[in-house]
Amino acid sequence: MAQNEPMPLKIILRMDFSPGDRLGRGKIQLLELIRETGSISAAGRAMDMSYRRAWLLVDALNHMFDAPAVERQRGGKQGGGAQVTAFGEELIARFRSMQQKAEAAMSDDLDWLLSHKTVPESGAAKQTSST
Amino acid sequence: MAQNEPMPLKIILRMDFSPGDRLGRGKIQLLELIRETGSISAAGRAMDMSYRRAWLLVDALNHMFDAPAVERQRGGKQGGGAQVTAFGEELIARFRSMQQKAEAAMSDDLDWLLSHKTVPESGAAKQTSST
Repeated sequence: MAQNEPMPLKIILRMDFSPGDRLGRGKIQLLELIRETGSISAAGRAMDMSYRRAWLLVDALNHMFDAPAVERQRGGKQGGGAQVTAFGEELIARFRSMQQKAEAAMSDDLDWLLSHKTVPESGAAKQTSST
Repeated sequence: MAQNEPMPLKIILRMDFSPGDRLGRGKIQLLELIRETGSISAAGRAMDMSYRRAWLLVDALNHMFDAPAVERQRGGKQGGGAQVTAFGEELIARFRSMQQKAEAAMSDDLDWLLSHKTVPESGAAKQTSST
């Protein structure tokens, strides 16, 4: 697969800690949006989730590791903003890098899968070309 | 992390093909159970799913690639069994190997995550040792 083509297949990665805690693209994307918007509610809105759900995800993240990922600032004009901590920044960077490393490690197998993939919703059982 | 210790964190891997088709541990585990039991319904039962759901997953798998992963045998005493095809075997082997390759590639980051992980449901904010 050429490196400059968009990947026709997305790799979804999730870490399930024992017991209970989960870390996946949802929480990481929320962190990235908090960094971008400076606000938990704006970040939640950008992901079509309620403020309560966004807050619960941030709260879960903040208790998952030995350092918080988001700091809330109370008061001020907007009723307080939020910012990603240094630990949160490392979490984002590590997760994105893990995703890339995993995809690179599986590259041959992903090519194999794509070479056998059919086009869904198509009458033809075989596609003419792939990868 | 020592290689002989059980991983205190599970990596969940899923492939989302564009558009629509998904391949993850559910379908792969079902394939492995069909190989073991020779039956779609027995495999489904072992995963606590209805025959209908198991059948739909097998049907989705069989249309996802240019070769079927499961062949059904009609008739016979038990009303017909099912067996994993050579393509299905390769799918299982590839998926399991992808999982291992991805975990190996992310090993340093997983160690980092675990070194910062707190124990959930515990009053203490820090755990005494990890990894």
